[in-house]
Amino acid sequence: MRLLFLGDVVGRPGRQAVMERLPALRERWLLDCVVVNGENAAGGFGITEAICDEILAAGADAVTLGNHSFDQREALVFITRQTRLVRPANYPPGTPGRGAMLVEARGGARVLVVNVMGRLYMDALDDPFAAADRELDACPLGQVADAVIVDVHAEATSEKQAMGYHLDGRASLVVGTHTHVPTADARILPGGTAYLSDAGMCGDYESVLGMHRDEPVRRFLQKTPGARLEAATGEGTLCGIAVETDGRGLAVRAAPVRIGPHLQEAGPDWWE
Amino acid sequence: MRLLFLGDVVGRPGRQAVMERLPALRERWLLDCVVVNGENAAGGFGITEAICDEILAAGADAVTLGNHSFDQREALVFITRQTRLVRPANYPPGTPGRGAMLVEARGGARVLVVNVMGRLYMDALDDPFAAADRELDACPLGQVADAVIVDVHAEATSEKQAMGYHLDGRASLVVGTHTHVPTADARILPGGTAYLSDAGMCGDYESVLGMHRDEPVRRFLQKTPGARLEAATGEGTLCGIAVETDGRGLAVRAAPVRIGPHLQEAGPDWWE
Amino acid sequence: MRLLFLGDVVGRPGRQAVMERLPALRERWLLDCVVVNGENAAGGFGITEAICDEILAAGADAVTLGNHSFDQREALVFITRQTRLVRPANYPPGTPGRGAMLVEARGGARVLVVNVMGRLYMDALDDPFAAADRELDACPLGQVADAVIVDVHAEATSEKQAMGYHLDGRASLVVGTHTHVPTADARILPGGTAYLSDAGMCGDYESVLGMHRDEPVRRFLQKTPGARLEAATGEGTLCGIAVETDGRGLAVRAAPVRIGPHLQEAGPDWWE
Amino acid sequence: MRLLFLGDVVGRPGRQAVMERLPALRERWLLDCVVVNGENAAGGFGITEAICDEILAAGADAVTLGNHSFDQREALVFITRQTRLVRPANYPPGTPGRGAMLVEARGGARVLVVNVMGRLYMDALDDPFAAADRELDACPLGQVADAVIVDVHAEATSEKQAMGYHLDGRASLVVGTHTHVPTADARILPGGTAYLSDAGMCGDYESVLGMHRDEPVRRFLQKTPGARLEAATGEGTLCGIAVETDGRGLAVRAAPVRIGPHLQEAGPDWWE
Ligand SMILES: [Fe+2]
Ligand SMILES: [Fe+2]
Ligand SMILES: [Fe+2]
Ligand SMILES: [Fe+2]
Ligand SMILES: [Fe+2]
Ligand SMILES: [Fe+2]
Ligand SMILES: [Fe+2]
Ligand SMILES: [Fe+2]
Repeated sequence: MRLLFLGDVVGRPGRQAVMERLPALRERWLLDCVVVNGENAAGGFGITEAICDEILAAGADAVTLGNHSFDQREALVFITRQTRLVRPANYPPGTPGRGAMLVEARGGARVLVVNVMGRLYMDALDDPFAAADRELDACPLGQVADAVIVDVHAEATSEKQAMGYHLDGRASLVVGTHTHVPTADARILPGGTAYLSDAGMCGDYESVLGMHRDEPVRRFLQKTPGARLEAATGEGTLCGIAVETDGRGLAVRAAPVRIGPHLQEAGPDWWE
Repeated sequence: MRLLFLGDVVGRPGRQAVMERLPALRERWLLDCVVVNGENAAGGFGITEAICDEILAAGADAVTLGNHSFDQREALVFITRQTRLVRPANYPPGTPGRGAMLVEARGGARVLVVNVMGRLYMDALDDPFAAADRELDACPLGQVADAVIVDVHAEATSEKQAMGYHLDGRASLVVGTHTHVPTADARILPGGTAYLSDAGMCGDYESVLGMHRDEPVRRFLQKTPGARLEAATGEGTLCGIAVETDGRGLAVRAAPVRIGPHLQEAGPDWWE
Repeated sequence: MRLLFLGDVVGRPGRQAVMERLPALRERWLLDCVVVNGENAAGGFGITEAICDEILAAGADAVTLGNHSFDQREALVFITRQTRLVRPANYPPGTPGRGAMLVEARGGARVLVVNVMGRLYMDALDDPFAAADRELDACPLGQVADAVIVDVHAEATSEKQAMGYHLDGRASLVVGTHTHVPTADARILPGGTAYLSDAGMCGDYESVLGMHRDEPVRRFLQKTPGARLEAATGEGTLCGIAVETDGRGLAVRAAPVRIGPHLQEAGPDWWE
Repeated sequence: MRLLFLGDVVGRPGRQAVMERLPALRERWLLDCVVVNGENAAGGFGITEAICDEILAAGADAVTLGNHSFDQREALVFITRQTRLVRPANYPPGTPGRGAMLVEARGGARVLVVNVMGRLYMDALDDPFAAADRELDACPLGQVADAVIVDVHAEATSEKQAMGYHLDGRASLVVGTHTHVPTADARILPGGTAYLSDAGMCGDYESVLGMHRDEPVRRFLQKTPGARLEAATGEGTLCGIAVETDGRGLAVRAAPVRIGPHLQEAGPDWWE
């Protein structure tokens, strides 16, 4: 199968990059399943139903979230009916929505999409390793799921790498999100799981985390209140990872995807 | 000028990658100045005098540090005489060593090497932005220094990006260290400063942060004491960034460097 | 019933205060049940079997722990046979020992002793509120348990207060530990649960957290490695809270206990 | 001299407790100097000019602040003209206002009021120990200042205790604020400095940190957005510490002050 994962969509530049490029990529690369992290899609903070629909319409099979899941409060409501929207599985029991979703991909294949949130330097949540285990045990790769994509929304590289090794051989792809900067360590772990510490964001990279850079820079220099954070407005870059799996759902190829103005471009040549 | 910066050297695999490859790179790329972060060179924790000498002998003009600066206590002593060893400038006044150093590079050019440590999710230190300002004001690029290299040892991408923009136009290169994973965002900022959020480590990437992966993974699953952390023992990969500067000391070209077994290889084609 | 809870025993001064004073207090106040936090009893770090036995022999019915539970590794072993030693209930499943214990108090009364660890500014653990709920649901006050004592080992006053209100009416006593400083807010919450944000330590108060003060003070001033932390050696003060419950196991009286050289003395006059 | 320090005034209950009780206390106890922490006086968040004037009119000689200093943005402006309002001295250079103030107390005595903010589990700021040293060196006790009051706005008891010992003999009083819970460790350190880890708040104690308790408790249980935090509305309790100094400005007596409905009442009997 051919899988594409795109990192945190930030504001309008991120959405536009997805809208304009994903439909063509889906066709050109004959993608079977596309997952997009949408936690910053609404002006940098959360996601609205209209935006979620837009991302799905552009070619995503599922949208994952993170620490900004519910910044737009309407997400607390529409997530209960929008089954292709997935929030971290290790939120407390009773949190609206779901932490994993078995998506029907192109051709009827079933792709398990799991979202977990790390705990190092982040909010207090229950164990993301245990949560991932539970979700993967419920839909094992090769038995129930034809592919498994795990979005590890986390700050620390140690926690993401540990998750990669912990799930190695049980997932098609373990990919980090949240830092908004793509890492250059895409590879296939010994057990057959494709891994990338961070997918990077889909957004304007001439910025701080996709937000207009003046106010974030000022906040590091001064400890007084200032302006609101606003999404940057330059052209967005699409960032993520492309993975090809074999019959067992394990990765045979993995390549970073970076399409847009600021970063060195990258993509899966083997699909071109 | 031709500058090379290499990220955190971790244990023997990192040291061997530097020893074996740096001398040849220095010649092949006609490097003017090489800076290497050595905070994890001694088994993952700190640096000894012998190891520091080894790295300098292999072709480094200066060695930078970070939160592990003094894990090997002998560093508290030999740093006072080894002027090419630089520790974070925003350590408290009275800390042994120096936070910046004007290195004489090949051909007599003067390169200011500055090391600062971020504060987000890290130990309490004084303002790294103010510290960087002080060091750069003391040796301004184009006046006192022919090139300026700033190693921002920090966890959060936001803080590193903010430092990049804050110093944009005043440094030749602002490069992050500490996460041990190379980022894929090497570029030249609008003011002419080359930037990379993290250089990545020089070490064995089939690991968690360069350390044998079993114990770090276990620590995320269990909260009981276990084994010591040991540096991984597989082949090391060299990671960093290559920068070419113009007569003003600003960057005209920047490319990631990744040489070794686990990551997609990269380098400055324009120097080959 | 007459309950006494004593906070973190720190090193020899803490142990001596307990050994010397607890047996007499137990008799003088006709105590039905005594619980002591022992996470720092062994030189400030963890607890050994010999020390645990000593504390129990001095009159404790149960010993609770915290983030230092397993600093002495033998605790990983002897906790499995010493059923009166209780470690935080929200450690990961599989952690040796137990997070709650139904103690048989004087006269056959059953006292549920629960230990949970907060998450604000502390290690990543599973939800302590959910863990407390589970333990209290398993042995409800007034049905299975004649009294319920919950030791909330936590840093932030907000989290401890929230736990107090969350359990109000379901526990006889919710008492914080970990900061090693007694708070002056002992009272009975509206639902009948006695509450104290922190019991304080049993240890030498002419110190930083019970440890000899030079090195901790130095660590705030300098960021270089220094001496080991050692327990202070002055006379210890006993700190905690005394609670009297009614037939339903709810508190009718609560008073701080402070006996020793450095703090203003306090105790339950109504038992004298 | 007779000094009184009152902890964080939280919302209307805190202000009313100050308004109603401070004028009488000032007379009854013949107070020479009163300092009040006002960082939460405006509905729990910051302080307005009107409220600052109110607190001063009620009998405070100076008002200190903390991490909420500028939650009410007008404080950025009026702090420049209101010289009796003191914000943490270790805010970045250029922050409006001042970190220390030499107050003229009753009878013309000069009292140095210093405010510093801790760094453990708090925002990144410059070294509070160095900041306190600078302020105390500029107005030494016994030479320039007749008394010195240092408000250490900090989370961790270790940092507050370390500050106490670090300044012991150089200040009349080192008192913590920020946790909103009074500690029971008021005492005079070996060098003659009165010390209390936390003054506690002036506010409604049937609450979480002075705020209506439902929403804070909910936030520990659920990770979804909810209601705004609102100050509680029950009767407020006055909390702080009373200190009597000798001719050198060192403490000869220190007693906690707790006046109001929820906590065990306390005060300096020796002034009655
Ligand atoms: Fe994000
Ligand atoms: Fe995020
Ligand atoms: Fe490092
Ligand atoms: Fe580091
Ligand atoms: Fe403790
Ligand atoms: Fe503790
Ligand atoms: Fe406060
Ligand atoms: Fe505060």
